[in-house]
Amino acid sequence: MEINKELKVSLVLNNDKLHFNGVSRENEQISIDYTPPLGDNLGYTSLELFLLSISSCIVSTVLIFLRKKNIVISGVNINANGIRKEEHPTGLKNVDINIEIDSENLTNQEMDSVIKKSKEEYCPVISMLNKDVQVAVNYEIIRERKHVK
Amino acid sequence: MEINKELKVSLVLNNDKLHFNGVSRENEQISIDYTPPLGDNLGYTSLELFLLSISSCIVSTVLIFLRKKNIVISGVNINANGIRKEEHPTGLKNVDINIEIDSENLTNQEMDSVIKKSKEEYCPVISMLNKDVQVAVNYEIIRERKHVK
Repeated sequence: MEINKELKVSLVLNNDKLHFNGVSRENEQISIDYTPPLGDNLGYTSLELFLLSISSCIVSTVLIFLRKKNIVISGVNINANGIRKEEHPTGLKNVDINIEIDSENLTNQEMDSVIKKSKEEYCPVISMLNKDVQVAVNYEIIRERKHVK
Repeated sequence: MEINKELKVSLVLNNDKLHFNGVSRENEQISIDYTPPLGDNLGYTSLELFLLSISSCIVSTVLIFLRKKNIVISGVNINANGIRKEEHPTGLKNVDINIEIDSENLTNQEMDSVIKKSKEEYCPVISMLNKDVQVAVNYEIIRERKHVK
């Protein structure tokens, strides 16, 4: 597979605090801001964007490998949370990525194996982190999604 | 300043490829996808979100310090690009963040000092990276923005 080797984004400051509009290519702009008093809560914080980045990265990598094994996936929901360090620099010390995956033919063994390979060898975002950031990927396989009227 | 110690995001897979909607709090959803053939280019890639995260993080930290020094900032434009590694895991090996900052009373010396402090001690996103990721922060101080009719 050919990968896009160079990526570009741009941002513009919108006010006299910390509100930015950010964008890549022809995507819709993302509103980025910080919490009060420095910002006005008008958008995503940088660390929330990071959490979306790492979560989508690891789950995409996992799905690619599962599909290569002919696993049928009928739905995926992810809840991720991050805990910041209390002293500067206040990066995340823990990232927990919790995946609910709907599949009739996925086993725990396959999921464990694919998560391990993705974390250790393939997920680009995780590969850029240092060892102080603990990333846990948890999952639950849903055999039959209950549909509530 | 009190910081929000725990952050949360959620994502839902939307199709049988790699298109997700991601969100935090009450923000507008972000469309996240990968390039063809694995995805359909329907949104931001994980690494583009990472570039927005690191760019907004470093620039916000810089602005906070400049304002503490009573530097007046009337505009900021950022262009950031990232170069991926060619072998798996294909994370970014280089991140270049280019800042155009409009200010009447900012000096190069102050900007150099604040960028160094932000990169080395304060920017949460940069603090999570390993040494293989080279982050360069470049800037141009604009004394008078030309307004074109």
